[in-house]
Amino acid sequence: MPRKRKVKAREGVHRQKVEESLANLGKEVVDDITKARPPRLKIPSRSTSNIIYDETNRYFVLGPHYGVRSAGSLKQVKKFAQLMCTADFCRDLIRSGKFATLREMYYTAEGWDAGPFRDQGESNVILEDLEAAFGLKRESLGLTPEEDGASVYGKLVVNEGGVTIDATKAGRAGYTIPPTIDDVDFIRCRAKRVIAIETMGMYHRLVQEKAWKKFDALIVGLKGQAARATRRFLKRAHEELGLPIAIFTDGDPFGFHIAMVIISGSAKLAYINHELAVPDARFIGVTASDIVKYNLPTDKLRELDIARLKQIQKDPRYSNEFWQDEIKRMLELKKKAEQQAFSKYGLSYVVKEYLPEKLGLKG
Amino acid sequence: MPRKRKVKAREGVHRQKVEESLANLGKEVVDDITKARPPRLKIPSRSTSNIIYDETNRYFVLGPHYGVRSAGSLKQVKKFAQLMCTADFCRDLIRSGKFATLREMYYTAEGWDAGPFRDQGESNVILEDLEAAFGLKRESLGLTPEEDGASVYGKLVVNEGGVTIDATKAGRAGYTIPPTIDDVDFIRCRAKRVIAIETMGMYHRLVQEKAWKKFDALIVGLKGQAARATRRFLKRAHEELGLPIAIFTDGDPFGFHIAMVIISGSAKLAYINHELAVPDARFIGVTASDIVKYNLPTDKLRELDIARLKQIQKDPRYSNEFWQDEIKRMLELKKKAEQQAFSKYGLSYVVKEYLPEKLGLKG
Repeated sequence: MPRKRKVKAREGVHRQKVEESLANLGKEVVDDITKARPPRLKIPSRSTSNIIYDETNRYFVLGPHYGVRSAGSLKQVKKFAQLMCTADFCRDLIRSGKFATLREMYYTAEGWDAGPFRDQGESNVILEDLEAAFGLKRESLGLTPEEDGASVYGKLVVNEGGVTIDATKAGRAGYTIPPTIDDVDFIRCRAKRVIAIETMGMYHRLVQEKAWKKFDALIVGLKGQAARATRRFLKRAHEELGLPIAIFTDGDPFGFHIAMVIISGSAKLAYINHELAVPDARFIGVTASDIVKYNLPTDKLRELDIARLKQIQKDPRYSNEFWQDEIKRMLELKKKAEQQAFSKYGLSYVVKEYLPEKLGLKG
Repeated sequence: MPRKRKVKAREGVHRQKVEESLANLGKEVVDDITKARPPRLKIPSRSTSNIIYDETNRYFVLGPHYGVRSAGSLKQVKKFAQLMCTADFCRDLIRSGKFATLREMYYTAEGWDAGPFRDQGESNVILEDLEAAFGLKRESLGLTPEEDGASVYGKLVVNEGGVTIDATKAGRAGYTIPPTIDDVDFIRCRAKRVIAIETMGMYHRLVQEKAWKKFDALIVGLKGQAARATRRFLKRAHEELGLPIAIFTDGDPFGFHIAMVIISGSAKLAYINHELAVPDARFIGVTASDIVKYNLPTDKLRELDIARLKQIQKDPRYSNEFWQDEIKRMLELKKKAEQQAFSKYGLSYVVKEYLPEKLGLKG
């Protein structure tokens, strides 16, 4: 039975929560000033030594170390002021219901009293400070990357700022996940699972072959390494809609890692993985065993592939038996295969044979 | 007054035309065989010496030279057979209403009697032969690139295979132009113009600031260099809907060239420019004069920028006074500016000041 769910509107709730965080920051600073203390901010450290793989949560988190930004230090006072201006800019965005790119903020800073940023790198660090301090993604602060997220096709109806969108009626290319995915309401979902796909070629194959109907699935086209908005969408689909997530990638170390970043998060974004990682997501991509089993057309592993495989072999995220076996086997085979290689057996084969097998839906 | 137009369904018509072209190819080959002649195909030459800038059409075209592929030559017989298999594969796609990626065709060829392709490059050349022979894009033959085209936001309603899509109701990210844009029907358009934008950052700015309403425009987010499907969409919007096309890019030689490829086509695709080029499209991107006039934040020209500017200075597509002046001026200024640089004056400035000025809609 396809599931039917209704989820409550969240745009207002989400905005309010973020605005409160920003207001509290302001209050603390004002409070310090009122009491004639130089305002200080504790910012979780994002240095490598403070990034820890959390065995319980099964993703990278930040450890206990903090840095302090103080307006009382001559060296830090400009950065402190820029952080305040950034927070103020974000509050304006949230209040007006707008969002801006990092590049726009960078140029806007040309007019700030705190002085402009030297380069984009400088403004990015300040923004990461703010994200880490609140445990909130930049998208929640109104700042978005330039590019949109993945494409979704299937029985999902969402609401974006008053507009209702059916992900089977947004065109062949599907519904595009916006950077502001946290403002989107899931109105109705009749799918039972999510299948996330590495390449858009395979995404279009699955849409054409009506895999979304056949497997009661939301088909998500990742476009390579998943954008933050895409990872957030997958996490919300899992938590709010109760859908299991399966990830179908190429059979090579880069494909494996596209899946693993969705599952266990990246070290670089340890300060925000609690909003992004989906530890229960399942890898159904091409393995070394599949290359043999399906006699797939292959390419030889390049030097880079071999180095990468040896690297992930030691990565805590790949420590279970499945990954250790498959990595070892691929190193022995010295071969990799793309997900589109199944078209050797006809365009529909992947939907008729491979996916039912991997999803446990065969027969 | 916003325009209102109705355009007739075209998916069936388009398919039929392509299928006839393929059938004629088959008939000619069968005819040759029946008459005991080795089948031959004349393929327009795509070598540099046969690519000509056509002053009348204002885009690159192929000259009069042809090459011959003959099944009677031992050296060419395998390629000839692969071309036949490719044409057959395309016919199957068209008949079944499916499309496939070049990568899928490459793997499918593993099972062909003519033998598999050595590499993707080999299969691409055969496909280009077929495109040039028919003067038809690969997308019309059912073969599509992996990636989707641009995003469109504005008062346009289209029909894709029976599904009606309103480009103001497909989500914040807009309607995504599919690779198979020739199968899409324009059902209704209430816009008066198209504004095509280089970066998705600026696209989202224009959507947020309701530029599509303010300027009665379809806002098109190019995502950098325009995909073939995007260029085809712009050409169809110009020819079928009668909309003027304006192109807003960064103020640097790469931005100029993004516009110019839309206007006058690329040399590489000379054999197909008649389906893609929009010689009447107008450049409204950032110029050297704008950098001075608006006192924009700039970056220094890199070596690469200077070399590229000197190169396009001699390009026939940039021969008019406007381009010659602006290229010269940028070389003197030694500076370039991004389209997002207008946010120096606030996020709305570009919509309130710059665009009305450039579009001649001021006051």
